[in-house]
Formats: sequence, structure tokens, C-alpha cells
Amino acid sequence: MNDPVRVAVVGVTGYAGYELARLLLRHPHIESPTFFLREAHANVRCLTELFPQLRGWGDAPCRPLSVEAVAASGAEVVFLSTPHEASLEMVPALLAANPRLRIVDLSGAFRFQRPETFAQWYKLPAPDAKTLAEAVYGLPELYADALPKARLVGNPGCYPTSVILGLRPLVAAGWMDAARGIVCDCKSGVTGAGKEPRRDTHFVEVNENFRAYNLFTHRHTPEVTEHLGLAAGDFVFTTHLLPVARGILSTLYGWLKPARKAEEIEALYGKFYNGRPMVRILPAGTLPELQHVARTNFCDIGFALDAAGERLVVVSCLDNLGKGAAGQAVQNLNGMRGYPETAGLL
Amino acid sequence: MNDPVRVAVVGVTGYAGYELARLLLRHPHIESPTFFLREAHANVRCLTELFPQLRGWGDAPCRPLSVEAVAASGAEVVFLSTPHEASLEMVPALLAANPRLRIVDLSGAFRFQRPETFAQWYKLPAPDAKTLAEAVYGLPELYADALPKARLVGNPGCYPTSVILGLRPLVAAGWMDAARGIVCDCKSGVTGAGKEPRRDTHFVEVNENFRAYNLFTHRHTPEVTEHLGLAAGDFVFTTHLLPVARGILSTLYGWLKPARKAEEIEALYGKFYNGRPMVRILPAGTLPELQHVARTNFCDIGFALDAAGERLVVVSCLDNLGKGAAGQAVQNLNGMRGYPETAGLL
Amino acid sequence: MNDPVRVAVVGVTGYAGYELARLLLRHPHIESPTFFLREAHANVRCLTELFPQLRGWGDAPCRPLSVEAVAASGAEVVFLSTPHEASLEMVPALLAANPRLRIVDLSGAFRFQRPETFAQWYKLPAPDAKTLAEAVYGLPELYADALPKARLVGNPGCYPTSVILGLRPLVAAGWMDAARGIVCDCKSGVTGAGKEPRRDTHFVEVNENFRAYNLFTHRHTPEVTEHLGLAAGDFVFTTHLLPVARGILSTLYGWLKPARKAEEIEALYGKFYNGRPMVRILPAGTLPELQHVARTNFCDIGFALDAAGERLVVVSCLDNLGKGAAGQAVQNLNGMRGYPETAGLL
Amino acid sequence: MNDPVRVAVVGVTGYAGYELARLLLRHPHIESPTFFLREAHANVRCLTELFPQLRGWGDAPCRPLSVEAVAASGAEVVFLSTPHEASLEMVPALLAANPRLRIVDLSGAFRFQRPETFAQWYKLPAPDAKTLAEAVYGLPELYADALPKARLVGNPGCYPTSVILGLRPLVAAGWMDAARGIVCDCKSGVTGAGKEPRRDTHFVEVNENFRAYNLFTHRHTPEVTEHLGLAAGDFVFTTHLLPVARGILSTLYGWLKPARKAEEIEALYGKFYNGRPMVRILPAGTLPELQHVARTNFCDIGFALDAAGERLVVVSCLDNLGKGAAGQAVQNLNGMRGYPETAGLL
Repeated sequence: MNDPVRVAVVGVTGYAGYELARLLLRHPHIESPTFFLREAHANVRCLTELFPQLRGWGDAPCRPLSVEAVAASGAEVVFLSTPHEASLEMVPALLAANPRLRIVDLSGAFRFQRPETFAQWYKLPAPDAKTLAEAVYGLPELYADALPKARLVGNPGCYPTSVILGLRPLVAAGWMDAARGIVCDCKSGVTGAGKEPRRDTHFVEVNENFRAYNLFTHRHTPEVTEHLGLAAGDFVFTTHLLPVARGILSTLYGWLKPARKAEEIEALYGKFYNGRPMVRILPAGTLPELQHVARTNFCDIGFALDAAGERLVVVSCLDNLGKGAAGQAVQNLNGMRGYPETAGLL
Repeated sequence: MNDPVRVAVVGVTGYAGYELARLLLRHPHIESPTFFLREAHANVRCLTELFPQLRGWGDAPCRPLSVEAVAASGAEVVFLSTPHEASLEMVPALLAANPRLRIVDLSGAFRFQRPETFAQWYKLPAPDAKTLAEAVYGLPELYADALPKARLVGNPGCYPTSVILGLRPLVAAGWMDAARGIVCDCKSGVTGAGKEPRRDTHFVEVNENFRAYNLFTHRHTPEVTEHLGLAAGDFVFTTHLLPVARGILSTLYGWLKPARKAEEIEALYGKFYNGRPMVRILPAGTLPELQHVARTNFCDIGFALDAAGERLVVVSCLDNLGKGAAGQAVQNLNGMRGYPETAGLL
Repeated sequence: MNDPVRVAVVGVTGYAGYELARLLLRHPHIESPTFFLREAHANVRCLTELFPQLRGWGDAPCRPLSVEAVAASGAEVVFLSTPHEASLEMVPALLAANPRLRIVDLSGAFRFQRPETFAQWYKLPAPDAKTLAEAVYGLPELYADALPKARLVGNPGCYPTSVILGLRPLVAAGWMDAARGIVCDCKSGVTGAGKEPRRDTHFVEVNENFRAYNLFTHRHTPEVTEHLGLAAGDFVFTTHLLPVARGILSTLYGWLKPARKAEEIEALYGKFYNGRPMVRILPAGTLPELQHVARTNFCDIGFALDAAGERLVVVSCLDNLGKGAAGQAVQNLNGMRGYPETAGLL
Repeated sequence: MNDPVRVAVVGVTGYAGYELARLLLRHPHIESPTFFLREAHANVRCLTELFPQLRGWGDAPCRPLSVEAVAASGAEVVFLSTPHEASLEMVPALLAANPRLRIVDLSGAFRFQRPETFAQWYKLPAPDAKTLAEAVYGLPELYADALPKARLVGNPGCYPTSVILGLRPLVAAGWMDAARGIVCDCKSGVTGAGKEPRRDTHFVEVNENFRAYNLFTHRHTPEVTEHLGLAAGDFVFTTHLLPVARGILSTLYGWLKPARKAEEIEALYGKFYNGRPMVRILPAGTLPELQHVARTNFCDIGFALDAAGERLVVVSCLDNLGKGAAGQAVQNLNGMRGYPETAGLL
């Protein structure tokens, strides 16, 4: 039933929040979203005051943020595009203030199975255990069944979305030689580093540059191991900063045991993602590239296999603000409300 | 003895050739290099006619190319910045025409231990076996001792230089768990793809894009395996195209057996590259980045080790036209002539 | 009346053609466009064979190109995204073969008032005079009234669209001091230079570079003078290549006589473009930027005036593939068919 | 007389300061420069601690900054790469503390003929009038004669260097029709905007973007009018931000009266810059480009003239950190000390 939904958005000043605003303004089943802004923007009354470049695309009212205002706003679904700390507090508060609210949280706060995982990797307080217990990890290709009844969706991280979608069919089938280990070499555009000006996001420091960062400490690591069921010691996950605005490309390495043929791999992925319109499997020997997924909600997956059928390289590619954040949040909304999975996303 | 050397260059119209010209014009021990150009440029008489942007930096005479002209030019050392096919023919011909000539060949033709390796990977005729037998693989950090007497130096590929320098200390020490395999995820700027206009080097196809290419078929693969002594099946080497002009960053993965401490790794590299000024080892936890080596002849190497001391990531970084091509060619010249290793390179 | 329209497209392999395909696939009043391809692509049967990255967005049939096939295809409107030479021949032939066809031609062939103008600036044969006589210059903000009955629309050039929209209100009002001259300093992204690989569109030649080109000879010059009514000697139009994929920003200079206040300028533009949704006038003191119009059909116009009210700088900004080509073609279709002006463009 | 000079540098943490450090480390007549750092870096003892990427290039001692320490350091020439406010105070203080010191100030504080000009455009206190009275405007192509005895050199701004060098021959010859006005449309890379992270220098805000800024208010305006002798009302100077790290390209427009031939223009420039090695005049019809001057101290100048010989476009191009800042500072040092003009700059 495609009845329209009333939504609210908390936090629109980051890159993911802005992307979410753009998607919601053109979503066919959303009438007019309401945006709640922090004090710094208390006098902003509509979205085009904040983002004049949206003029002509549509507009939406803005209101000062408070848990009470959001809870009483009439919104049925609330998107939180807020810092981890804010989500940690606001999610339980909102659900307490209005138990019929449903929340898609884009922060990392409600993504993990155990509260301690978040606390340990993010060096922040653990999320409320009871609230976390009802959170669904919002990767629709894996957990779509849980969305229609979910009251809280932890929207996945950008890197984990690319890595988990890229490896899950193989891991689920038990085709990998786990003892040899899996290497995930991931590269992201700069919107993934946030909108706050910092030395390391200055144009001159990124342009004509490339570097690895946060080796063995990246906070997206436990999302990957949880949903791939890997032992930490057999798995390496690295992240690099690309001199582009948008997009993640993950190059994923493993050894197959026993050896396989390329057609088998292709068939495995084709079957696993059959009926999932936002994942596009490329034919054997064709590799995805960033430009083909930038500004879309697609995750493109391709692979190469050596002649012996043992060494496998999977390449998984998406837009970190699309399928890696705001687009996936909309896809989760579609799943929660029973809309077509691609509604508002093409 | 720093007596000046007379050099000739064949091929200056590619990116590596131009970079070589720039370096030779400012080298303290080279008086005036002579450039030999193919028919298409037969009427060019000096370098600044071809490259007006060099005006003010210096100039050098250009002459029509023939084996005879080069052999009789008075040059003591000849650099070939030519296609593989041209080097295959010209190297033996030049050495036959003038046995006292010494050659640094920047193509792939004389880099391998066995002629068949080249033929198999490059899909071209094999190099002359007798000529190949006297070729030195021009990676001065490993084979400097062979340079003073070398008549022919096969200048290494850009990717192999970064990978071999990054892994050789570990492999030589036997610290890696070879059974788990080694993964080399390499990324290069676009000058590595050559100057010839192609669809895949068009600005619009590279800009804001990123992709892997030539998986399991890249011609630089056998250079790496030869000089690291790795079994092909335990080793994966991939290449990606970065939207930058210059630079290679290789992220290198392996498991240590037994476990080690970061200080041990740092000491191993420090000792291995002691006295080698063009390799800069970064302290544990500091990682290299492209900008710091672009337009230099340095190879910067850093690493990260997990808490257990088992999972190791080495990052090796250089300029593909510098240490990966023209700079290394000059470094080889320095070794051949007994000049300081960094002459003309700082 | 928003009845659906059947359209055909000739030429989809350039950047503008591809952009047009993307727009037509999502246009609400177009059912399924048909694409006609040249011999080189004779065996392509659908658009996603040619552009796999469109998978999931929609698809459309492809057929071998011939005048007869297009004329008999059932299409009511035909878009020609073809080289000038091809349009010169195909437009009269199509109109002869099927007099009820209506054509939007994206080439330069049918943009000028007199056939000689094209011949002189393009160094090509003049277009058929009778055909040209019925062509409408497809800048809807100026000539929307002519669209509903137009059988042939010459879709404007990218630079002229930005310059004419930026200056027309002032020129029409007679506010400029023509005797002092008008300077148009225009900068474009690389998609404007075409998809064909050339030395000057190689990534390495464009990246970290910037240059002026075609001074006093750019073929877009006469479009500007025709629609601004300027004497060639009082007008300078220059073009530069920006290291970005998409977008044109034109900085337009003139002296006002008599002096004016900023509010007068703002009011003049506001009135001139009242009711034209694809032109966005920015408040005095706010200047447009490329990112705000990239991938849109908007033309953003802002200005700065000196304290004396005499020296005026107008900045006009659009996407060369959007409002400067494919988007404008769709806007022309909307005008021809009576659809809302923004249909399929937001 | 090429006796070595002892120099000190105050301020090395900005882009111009770092570039200056690089140039000084390789200058043949400078033994070892001393760097003076503010409190934030009080414990830094050598340059490679601050910039590890300089390892291998050379090194230099760092000391805590105080007027007394600089004055007593033994330095004969001091470079100030400091904020305007700091230079305003430090220049008179240093000259008072050690009257034999000679200073090259890279800030805007001592560039203007009258103290009020600085105060008005920079919204800061006026510089000390007596100190300013002895300052030389450090554009060696115009004022080289004053350098050998100068105690204080105000190093020019980057934009003014490109505009003044581009137009001075024409203005000095009286060839321009001043009544029609002169338009200077300038574009700069992002290093010109400083190293401090700001919203408008964030990679994502600059990349794939382009915009004009500071129209009619740019602080470099009065440098241009002073040295070209133009009436403010007949002259427009605009600045734009290019998505590149380094370089300025200025497109300069005017009308000639009477008309001239291209050869006359070429001869005028050739004569004007005869014997000035850092300005390269391009032959008529050839236009400069950013890449050819990036990382050099050259200013390249080309032009195009219409068929009538009236409308003239001059393009002037340099590296904003080279000839536009640090390189020019070294060129000024060379002039002050009688070294060859290009010493340390090729």
C-alpha cells in the first residue's frame, strides 16, 4: 500500500543530511518532510534559506530541534543524520516520547549487536541496551524481512555496505579458504570524511594526493566482521582517501577452496542478489568503476579469478552518500513502509 | 671520479622521456645530452622547439634517429625511452654497432631473467638471449654492486619498484607466512598509462573516477615475483587508476610468522635501507602519502601492525615518473658512473 | 495537454547524447524513446548494451540509422545529437521524408539567421536556406512563443546560452554603454570539448591546468552577437578550459550609462525572467557557482556593481550538458508539446 | 660578487613559507637558513621535524621567534612570511633592533605608496609611514635598480604580479584606449587562499567547482592600479577560484588606439622584457597555460589580437607560490645581493 508517509529529518547540515534532503524532496510517497535544526540555525524557516541551490527543486519547512517537537510533529518516520553522541541520546528519548515513531538512524550508535562493541570502537558511551536490542541493521539486501516491523533501523556505514555486499555470497556459501585470510582494501571519496573543515580535507592536501588512514583502528571494522562472521585475525580492512568527492571502491581478496570456475562465481552472486534491484552484478571479467555508481543508490559488483580458479578478487563499488548513507536510508524507509524498493531512488 | 659523461636519449615524446630530459638538463655531471627523434620529428633541431615550456631551463640538440647516428654520436651512455618493440631491436643493434656504449633501457624488454617471460607476458618476440644475459635489473637499492660494470641496465617498472622495495626486507628475512599469501593492492596516477590519447585516459573518464584494471594479467607481475621469490599462486597483484597525474601508492598485505613487534619491523627496514638515500623509512604508525614523493626520486615506506603482531600492512609510495622511471634511470646512471647516488635528483 | 510523445534520438555516443538519453528515460511524458545508431554500432539492440551503467534506470531499443528508418519510426519528435555535417544533411532529408516530423537539432547547423554565418564560422557548407528559414533558436526564455508551432528547433550552443541569458535583460533595456564594449570571459568543463580522445583532453593535459583557447575564432561567437545585437568590434568573447567535467561559468563585463543602483539591476532581471523557472536570479552580492548548477537544467545569474553604479560584472552559470545542451533540448520539447517547462528536468 | 648570504625566515607554516623553505634549501648562495617559529612550535628544533617530507632534501635549524632573536641571529636578510598584522609590527621593530638587517616582507603591509591605501583595503592599522617610505615594491622586472640598496622590499601580491607584468608594456607605451577601460579576469589555484582549513577551501567545495569572489573588494586591486597608473573607474579586476593547487592565469582585455599589428605587440613585449629571464613572451597566437609555469618562477605572457588590430587579449600566467610569492622573494634576494637573477630558481 503506497499511502504517503510523513517524515521528519534531524540534521541536514552534513553531506549525508543534504543528500537525504534532496532524495526526500523528490520521493513520490513523501509529501513534505520537516527538518529540525539545532540552535545555530534556529531562525531558519525553510530549507532553501539554508541551501539556496535547492531553489526550484522544492522546499520544506525547518523548525528548531527538540525531542518534544520531533515527537509531536506528526512524523511517522524520523531520520537522524546526527553525530553519534546525539543519536545515542535522541533515539531512546524519541521512542519514549512517542512509541509509534519509527527511526532510521544514520549514525554508528545503533549498528552493532552488542552495546560494548560501539563503546569500544567509538570511545563513547554504549547505546542503551534495550533500545539496541530492537534495532535492525539496515542492509535491505540481507535483512529486508525485518524492515516492515522495525521501529529502529541502524543505517549501515558506507565502507561496510560495500564490503559486506561484496563478500557475503561467498562467505555464506562457505567457498572461501578462511585460513588464508581475507583482505579488504577500500578507497573512499572525501565526502566520507565529513563537511567540517580540517587540515586533512583542505583541497590542497587531498588534491593530487592519496593515502591510507586509520589502519587497524577504523570504526567500520566491527560492522564488517559481524555480518561476514569472520575472525578478526584472519581479516584485514584498510581505508584510503581518494581525491574525488563521492564514491567507495573496495577491492576484496581471498583464496577459494576448492577452486571454482568464473561461471560458478557469477551464478552464485546472480542467485544471491536475484530480485534485489539496487545491486548490479557485472559479468565475469567486467569490473565496476566509481563513475557508474556516483550519485546513484546502486552497488556494482564485479570480480576476477585467476586461471587456477583459486585467487579471487571481488570489486564492490557504491556512492558513499547514496547506497552508503542517504540512499540506503531511503531504501530502508521503502522497506519499512512497503513501497517499491527503488522508490525515489532512480 | 665525477668526470662528466656524454649521454644520448632516444625517445623524449612520452611522459617518462620528458621527465628524463628535465632531469638530464639539470644533472651536474652531464654536459649537454643529445636527443634522437623519430621521423615524425625529423626537422626538430632542439628540445625547446618540441617543448617550448623548457625555455629558460636549458636546451639540447635533437637529431634524426638511427642506430648508426646514436652509435657514432660520442655518447657514452644511451637512455632508451622507447616502446618495448623498439628497445627489443635497438639494444642489441646499438651494442653491436658500438661495444663501448652503455645503455639504460626504460622499456620492459630487458627486465626479466628469462627471454620467455617477456614474450609470454608482453605478447611480443622474446629479447635476444645473449644480450639479456648481461642485463642488470636496475634497482640500485638491491643491485648497486652490478652497476659499475653494467653495459645494459633494464630499468624497472614503476609498480614493481614500489612493491619490491616495500616487501624485500621482509621476504629476505623470511618473516612472512608465505602459506597465507601476500596481497599487493597498487594504485597509480595517469601518467603511468602513457601520453597517447585514449578513451580511458580522457579527462572526463578519469576525473572523479577510480577503477581496477588488468587483474591477473598486468605485465609488471613477473618482475615482482622474480625479485621477491614468491610463488605465483600465493601472491596477488592488482592495479588501479587514480585520478591524479603522478604517483604510485602500493598497499601490501601479509601475515607474519612468528608474530613480531613494530620496533622489530622498523629496525629491519632501517637496517636494510641503511645508506640508501632514495628510500625513506617512516617511523612505525606513520604512513606515506603521494604528495610527499610526487616530483621526487624518493620511495617512502611506512607500515602498520596489528596488536597481535601478526597482520602487517606495508605502504610503499613513489612517483611513477621519478623513482618509477626517469629518476631511477638517472640513479642507475649515477651508479654506473660512480657519481653520488642522488646526483641530479634532489 | 500532456499526452505522451513518441521520440527518436539520432546519436547517443557523445556526452550530450548520453545525457539526453538519461533525461528522456526519466521524462514523465515520453514512453520509450528509440535510438538510432550508426553502422559502427549496427548490432546493438538496446541502450544498456551500449551503456551497461544504465542498467536499472530503464532501457530503450536501438536500431540502425537511416533517414527512412527514422522517418517511418512513428516518432513525432526527433532529437539529433549528431556532428554538424550530419545534421546539415539529415534535417532537410528527414523533413522531406516525413513532413509531420518535428526536429530538435543539437548541432550548430541550424542556429543562425543566415546560412552564410554558419558556413563562415564552421568552414563547412551552408545549411539549406529554406529549411533554415523555419528554424527557431531554441532558447525558451526568449523564444518560447515560437516553440508550439516549430517544426525545427536549433538548440543553442552552451556558451551562448550562458552569455545571452546573462546579458539580454541589460541589452534589451539599453542600460549598457555600448561604446565602452562588453567583455565575456567564459570558462567551460571538458565535456564541452567532446568525447573523442585528443591530446588536449588527455587527463594529464587538463588536470591541474587551465588555458584560454580559440580567441577571436570560437564558433559560438555569432550566436552571441545575433541575439544580443552587438557590433562585433565592441564585444570580446573568450573561452577557457577548466579542469572539471561539467559546467560553464561566464563572467560578463560592461559599463552602465547612466549609473544604476544594485536594486535596479536585481529588479530588471527579476522582471525579465519572471515565470521562467529554469533561470534563477541571485540576490545582489551573491554570486553563482558551478556546483550549484552541475547536473541540473538551471542557469544561475548573479552580479556585482561598483559603488559608483557604473562598472557591472554579471556572472552566469550553467551545466554545459544540461541547460547548455541536452536539458535545453528537453526544455524545447516541453515547449513544443505544451508540457510544463520543467517536466523531466527536476 | 657571489659571496654566500646568511638568511633567516619568519613564518614557514603557510604554503608560501614552505615553498620559500624549499627554495632556500637548494639556493647555491645560501649556506643554512634559520627558521623562527611562533610559540605553537616552540619545541621544534629543525625543519624536518615540522615537515618530514623534506628529509633527504636538506634541513635547517628552527628557533623560537622573537624580534631580539632574529635581530641578533647573524642573518643579513630576513624573509617575513607572516600575516599582515605581524609584519606591520615586526618590520619596524627589526629594522630598529638591527639597522643593518635587510627584509623581504611577503605580506601586504609594505606594498603601497601611501599608508592609508593599506589601511583602507585591509581594514587594519596603517603601516609606519617612515618605514614604508623606504620600501621597494619587489617586482624586479620593473624595479630591479632599487634592489641593491633596498633595506625593505614589499614582495608583491600574486594577482598583481601577473596583471602588472601582463599590461605594463602596453600601458607604458600608451597604446591602450584608456577611455574604453581595461578588464582583468583572473583565476587562481587554492594555495592562494591559504592553508587554514575553511569551508570554502574544503576539497568537496572546491573540486568540480568554480566561482568568482571578492568582486570590487579584492585587496590586490590597489597594487594593480598603482603600478599601471589606471583610474579605478576605467578598470575592473576580478578573481576566481580554480580547482587546482597552484597557478594564476589572468586574461586581460583592452582596446588599442590606434590599431596595431600583432608583430608590433610582440616586439613591444620582447623589448620591454629583454634581459629579464623570468618573463617568457610567447609568439603571437600562442597562449600560455598553467602547467607550463606551475612549480617555476616564470611568468608566461601571450596574446591574441583581432583582425582589425583593435581588440586585444593578453594572457599572463604564473605560479602563485613561485613568481607570485616565494620565488619572487628569492628573485628579490638575488637582486639585493647581486646574484644572478635566476639563482636558485631553475
